[in-house]
Amino acid sequence: MTYCLAFLLDAGLVFASDSRTNAGVDYISSYSKMHVFKPAPDRIFVIMAAGNLGTTQAVLNRIRRDIDEHQAAAGGPPPEQEGAPDLIQARYLFEVADYIGNLSVGVQRNYRHSLQEAGATGEASFILGGQIAGQPHGLYLIYPQGNAIMATQETPFLQIGESKYGKPPLDYIGHHGMTLEDAARLCLVSQVVTRRSNLTVGPPFEVAMIPRDTLEMSRRMRLQKDSMLITRTMEIWARSMQDTLARLPRFGWEEDPL
Amino acid sequence: MTYCLAFLLDAGLVFASDSRTNAGVDYISSYSKMHVFKPAPDRIFVIMAAGNLGTTQAVLNRIRRDIDEHQAAAGGPPPEQEGAPDLIQARYLFEVADYIGNLSVGVQRNYRHSLQEAGATGEASFILGGQIAGQPHGLYLIYPQGNAIMATQETPFLQIGESKYGKPPLDYIGHHGMTLEDAARLCLVSQVVTRRSNLTVGPPFEVAMIPRDTLEMSRRMRLQKDSMLITRTMEIWARSMQDTLARLPRFGWEEDPL
Repeated sequence: MTYCLAFLLDAGLVFASDSRTNAGVDYISSYSKMHVFKPAPDRIFVIMAAGNLGTTQAVLNRIRRDIDEHQAAAGGPPPEQEGAPDLIQARYLFEVADYIGNLSVGVQRNYRHSLQEAGATGEASFILGGQIAGQPHGLYLIYPQGNAIMATQETPFLQIGESKYGKPPLDYIGHHGMTLEDAARLCLVSQVVTRRSNLTVGPPFEVAMIPRDTLEMSRRMRLQKDSMLITRTMEIWARSMQDTLARLPRFGWEEDPL
Repeated sequence: MTYCLAFLLDAGLVFASDSRTNAGVDYISSYSKMHVFKPAPDRIFVIMAAGNLGTTQAVLNRIRRDIDEHQAAAGGPPPEQEGAPDLIQARYLFEVADYIGNLSVGVQRNYRHSLQEAGATGEASFILGGQIAGQPHGLYLIYPQGNAIMATQETPFLQIGESKYGKPPLDYIGHHGMTLEDAARLCLVSQVVTRRSNLTVGPPFEVAMIPRDTLEMSRRMRLQKDSMLITRTMEIWARSMQDTLARLPRFGWEEDPL
């Protein structure tokens, strides 16, 4: 399984992902699920992927090939491409979401019959965030069917993969006005909490930040399970829950200890 | 959807359930999912149900009928019954779990074809807790397939229904040695957190406690959404998350505010 999430903030974008991949319980490995693309100086994109690893890797390989071919043809006529404009041609972020959705549906179609025969699915979901110069920064969730939804001020975070365990802290305290650093801390809490309840989500955890209108990634971290930041975050969060339980209201028949 | 959970404690048993039932988004109603049976002075059982409401109600109706017939036949020969002994006959709690599992599978079988044709499923899960005099108190989760697992000291809680959102607090601070009241508070936190992230789980929340070796339910509560206990619990939990976020370790490039 996988758990990736991202925040759309007034201050920019924050991304977080785990690195656990498993095909059954006896083939567990570690893959980065966070991919940064800066195909031209006027744009930056982060793509995170969950679902069938074959599909997500095939989609990312095609994205890279399209960029290569596009750059190789620089000066000459642009390479012929079907469908939505790629990461270099796109003028709007939603066009990049459509492009990724198209690639994903195409790859899934290639293997659908053979996967169905094996009782498996090639489905994959993606989170796309980034900015193109002159456009606002944005964040999209691309479904396995190729369509996409975007984050808004009211719904500032998006999740893919094993998203339920880590959602309550986001619902309670996540908002569009957070600093990049606070949102990154909240993302790590959400990852750590998920990891505690579901071992198919696991470190290293990756975090990246893109401040608004900079078109650059300002920070990128890869945090191991035993890193000071992760162990302290886990300790403080667990201790806080314990302390809070002791502060909750007593029932009518109990003596109030306070 | 539904969310029920229960704790097996050294001190006894604690049960908690929501009351939201929905068939689609336009037929939402409120049903109690917590059912207490005291069919004889030497035993007490609590049964909570999740899944297809037709199945769970049919199972509970059959349980009640078997008790009625059994009690009506008191003095005469016991009524003929197939399969596992019922709530009055059982000498062990696991026999009651088997009995409920058998009933559930039987009911599901009756409607399987017609439900499949409608693209629906009759699956249901149950939590059974209780005690029979002379036996230890215990807690079982009965799967839709009729088999069951039991809670242990190491795994003291069981959940059915929408179980992921509310699991992290249980994983972090739930343990076999809690008081009945602390476990009840933790169950309410788990319910409230789930409710915040998924509107198909909803109040009133019900809570029940059975102290060990008493064969009696010591407390039963039905808490409305606007009850002081629920609103205060939500406030304190949310505030605590907010405060804890501010106490988490800073990143290397930030000034430490402490």
